[in-house]
Amino acid sequence: MRADSALARRGAYGHWITERIRWSDTDQFGHVNNLAISAYFETGRTEMLRSVFARDAPRRVLLLLAHIAIDYLGELHWPGDVDVGTGIIDCGRSSVRLGQAVFSGARCISTAESVLVHIDEHTRRSRELPDWLREHLSAYRTAGTSPAG
Amino acid sequence: MRADSALARRGAYGHWITERIRWSDTDQFGHVNNLAISAYFETGRTEMLRSVFARDAPRRVLLLLAHIAIDYLGELHWPGDVDVGTGIIDCGRSSVRLGQAVFSGARCISTAESVLVHIDEHTRRSRELPDWLREHLSAYRTAGTSPAG
Amino acid sequence: MRADSALARRGAYGHWITERIRWSDTDQFGHVNNLAISAYFETGRTEMLRSVFARDAPRRVLLLLAHIAIDYLGELHWPGDVDVGTGIIDCGRSSVRLGQAVFSGARCISTAESVLVHIDEHTRRSRELPDWLREHLSAYRTAGTSPAG
Amino acid sequence: MRADSALARRGAYGHWITERIRWSDTDQFGHVNNLAISAYFETGRTEMLRSVFARDAPRRVLLLLAHIAIDYLGELHWPGDVDVGTGIIDCGRSSVRLGQAVFSGARCISTAESVLVHIDEHTRRSRELPDWLREHLSAYRTAGTSPAG
Repeated sequence: MRADSALARRGAYGHWITERIRWSDTDQFGHVNNLAISAYFETGRTEMLRSVFARDAPRRVLLLLAHIAIDYLGELHWPGDVDVGTGIIDCGRSSVRLGQAVFSGARCISTAESVLVHIDEHTRRSRELPDWLREHLSAYRTAGTSPAG
Repeated sequence: MRADSALARRGAYGHWITERIRWSDTDQFGHVNNLAISAYFETGRTEMLRSVFARDAPRRVLLLLAHIAIDYLGELHWPGDVDVGTGIIDCGRSSVRLGQAVFSGARCISTAESVLVHIDEHTRRSRELPDWLREHLSAYRTAGTSPAG
Repeated sequence: MRADSALARRGAYGHWITERIRWSDTDQFGHVNNLAISAYFETGRTEMLRSVFARDAPRRVLLLLAHIAIDYLGELHWPGDVDVGTGIIDCGRSSVRLGQAVFSGARCISTAESVLVHIDEHTRRSRELPDWLREHLSAYRTAGTSPAG
Repeated sequence: MRADSALARRGAYGHWITERIRWSDTDQFGHVNNLAISAYFETGRTEMLRSVFARDAPRRVLLLLAHIAIDYLGELHWPGDVDVGTGIIDCGRSSVRLGQAVFSGARCISTAESVLVHIDEHTRRSRELPDWLREHLSAYRTAGTSPAG
């Protein structure tokens, strides 16, 4: 529908994980429930961020999900594996915009665009992204997506 | 962020359910995980649709989620209950656009806008919304939200 | 099968919660997945313990699940509510044994017996149950179940 | 506790899957929630059964979980993978008893023993296991566990 077609291409992403479809991911429609697909996106997102933080985090960094828009492009069925690609679309003052897609083989099942806000662990308010984080995130920039969104 | 402020008001909704926060809804950040909030939206959506179908469905109706955009406005913690409001923003030829919000008491935790597509059970392709469905859905129209989106 | 019939009676329990069945609790068999029923048990267990701790906890108490045995007595379907009853069967030196049941109206869907171990937050090793905790837990003793197990 | 030590050895199992720990598998205790571990067991169980059915099922076979007993032997943390081993302990007239274990590298996190009942799809009542199924299941017999339970 509002799917950004650039997000549906495997070539857009530099970070990948593979997820196994669980039996409990299915629902009474007989297919994989949309919440399970949201979980695949979350695992991709958190693992990419962890690989960034692990490299050079002088202190605990907290990025909370503020917005996510998901397009479901086709149905998915148990059993099987899916590949989750994740990349950075752009960085704002205190936030990061990510693009993601879930693939079943060559078929793109779903794309997502999300905004994570950098917050202070104690005040729980947004704060500027540190330069080292901004720099490391840029290594995962998506290919072919417009920073203007 | 892109939150439609009209969706964050209790007065916008005619359909309500109450969900209990489960221990397993929390994650290692210590708060309720965003997927659990997506589950609250799904329960609200499916129960509203079921109340529509139950009234006058001559045959099985299949509405699949094609798009959802969620804004997370604040953190939520276990234990407790949340109220989920659901309403129709507008109907297209073969799709329905819903607005929703999750409240913890007076506080709006999250809003969502979703698009459900009416599909044929056998061909799995979209088909026009029948008039009786369109009419029944209109009973749950949201108040104060723009049909133009 | 190994179901303790005493656990399948509503009269056995002094602590109750009501859980709403979520759409995502179903699986492709068309019924509520057994993991969702495990989640209902967990919410009942954690809410009962929290009501105990809230009364008189001089410090943070950590009770981790060490064992659970669940009997599934019948199928459950969306939508609807379930009632979860929870009680204490007995207390050991450093552990607590709980009995639970999930009811859909008058029908008992599932019973569970679990063992929680009191552990030290820092060493992560088991430690003796304090007397105040043992005393408060006894208020939720199940009726008609044998402490000998 | 009541852990059957034979179930905690990798050598006991002939069927294996690998599961990725999801961020949403964690809870506010900071570790992987016990329900997620139950989900790993379920995926292992359903994939083993599917590999049996796929070989020679003349009709749809329905095996429902009637009982499960799980021992949690240690804590598990995100991120990472787990290996799930599954095997048949023995077959009854209309039921199958399975043994399983979840491993994080060399460490056994949890063991489970479950009973699945063969039911008729229409009457939802138990019925005798067909010979072909009994024979195929025997290929996954656990090593070193007592059929007497």
